[in-house]
Amino acid sequence: MTERNLSRRQLVSTVGGVLGGGIAGVLLASDDKPASPAPPAAAAKPAATTPWAYHALDPEATAEHGFVGYSKGHCMYGSFEAVVGSLGEKYGEPYKSFPVMMMKYGAGGVNGWGTLCGALNGGAAAIQLLSPDPNPLIDELFVWYDAEALPDYVSKAAKYPNVPSVSGSPLCHVSISNWCAKTGKKSFSPERNERCALITASVARHVALLLNKQSEGTKVVSTLPAEASGCMSCHEKGGALENARTKMTCPQCHFHLGTEHPRT
Amino acid sequence: MTERNLSRRQLVSTVGGVLGGGIAGVLLASDDKPASPAPPAAAAKPAATTPWAYHALDPEATAEHGFVGYSKGHCMYGSFEAVVGSLGEKYGEPYKSFPVMMMKYGAGGVNGWGTLCGALNGGAAAIQLLSPDPNPLIDELFVWYDAEALPDYVSKAAKYPNVPSVSGSPLCHVSISNWCAKTGKKSFSPERNERCALITASVARHVALLLNKQSEGTKVVSTLPAEASGCMSCHEKGGALENARTKMTCPQCHFHLGTEHPRT
Repeated sequence: MTERNLSRRQLVSTVGGVLGGGIAGVLLASDDKPASPAPPAAAAKPAATTPWAYHALDPEATAEHGFVGYSKGHCMYGSFEAVVGSLGEKYGEPYKSFPVMMMKYGAGGVNGWGTLCGALNGGAAAIQLLSPDPNPLIDELFVWYDAEALPDYVSKAAKYPNVPSVSGSPLCHVSISNWCAKTGKKSFSPERNERCALITASVARHVALLLNKQSEGTKVVSTLPAEASGCMSCHEKGGALENARTKMTCPQCHFHLGTEHPRT
Repeated sequence: MTERNLSRRQLVSTVGGVLGGGIAGVLLASDDKPASPAPPAAAAKPAATTPWAYHALDPEATAEHGFVGYSKGHCMYGSFEAVVGSLGEKYGEPYKSFPVMMMKYGAGGVNGWGTLCGALNGGAAAIQLLSPDPNPLIDELFVWYDAEALPDYVSKAAKYPNVPSVSGSPLCHVSISNWCAKTGKKSFSPERNERCALITASVARHVALLLNKQSEGTKVVSTLPAEASGCMSCHEKGGALENARTKMTCPQCHFHLGTEHPRT
């Protein structure tokens, strides 16, 4: 994970390239302070037009912003607001007027349904809002979340020992159950609540790293989990059955295929 | 599903109650036309403050808006923009300035990952943005999507015969695979693409129905799928194991539990 070692002084943000219709500006960001005011091209565009200009963020500060934000509006709000709220604090509009509290719905995989991890939902939303080429970043965010031992960011304000676990899935339900199996803690315990705040922080940090990387001009390429490739060869696009659509790792849910499934 | 039979003339919208700090106005909406201009209370609030005022929408027109929108930005964009875009067309700001294209990320359960159905992701986002009490509406939207044979809206512009299927899950991957099993069609076929456009339309329609219902003052109460209650009694909050968090129907994914799981 080379981007983790990226110096804050190395962060280069190319802004206005897409929003400004070719009027590109290259800024060298130093620590948390913007190198120059927001370019007029970004301010002149209506807020309804996407993507909005991205300005390099400090990943560590974004992570802590996400950790604090979790306590206000849970995981999806936390990761989204860490990015968009940080831009609003520094650059004002249009970021400042975004109704960030609408992202509360993603909590616990949408209102406790355990579907998509809210931190990922908010992270993907922020990427789509701010990136001229969001798809590779979203894929990389999900691949990273699937495979890494997380949380990989620990706030100084954390109360409990951090025990990272591999989710193996972008789903809240799977991510939490795998953490429970690793730690022996319960899914509605205060430790799990803090773990999800730190997951939110970790995702916010990674979103900032990916957006920084892309705005530097570095291509982000990710490889989907190999674990699912056997299943996909029959079930996904172009396969003999072609009766599924997913990039998830199949055995995380289908851990028993039963006797009627052909041996693989 | 009594709300399906709701007359468009019966739609009553209570607006401004939350946003207007107690200055509530009650409007009787007739067909597609607003009964009166947007109340000043809604316009005076900053766009960052949620919820935004909701005005009753015609469910059928909202559905068709979603069907057309799907071809512009896929499922999540389609359901969200059907609601928020329709409000923007009729009432202008703040709806009109929402960067709706950011919702493209939810396509195919987020960039083809097959997690949360994008139509539900967009529908839940619209509910959270527009409702003073979103949680019961989001739960009911998910319960309905889980259990109903969908699509239940068919556009006159549809090219293929509509074959409804029960998803049994809010997940894109499961919803599509169950439709493939029902129809014998492939997951990347043009028929599946149109089916997802009609799912988007059906969800947009249901979101409008639920928001209309709540704004009339009718309480929305939903019952979670009974199929999962046995599993939940051990695995969910308060259970002996408490090692999961979900409202999904367990056997949709865990259809083989293997020999090591206690008999239920």
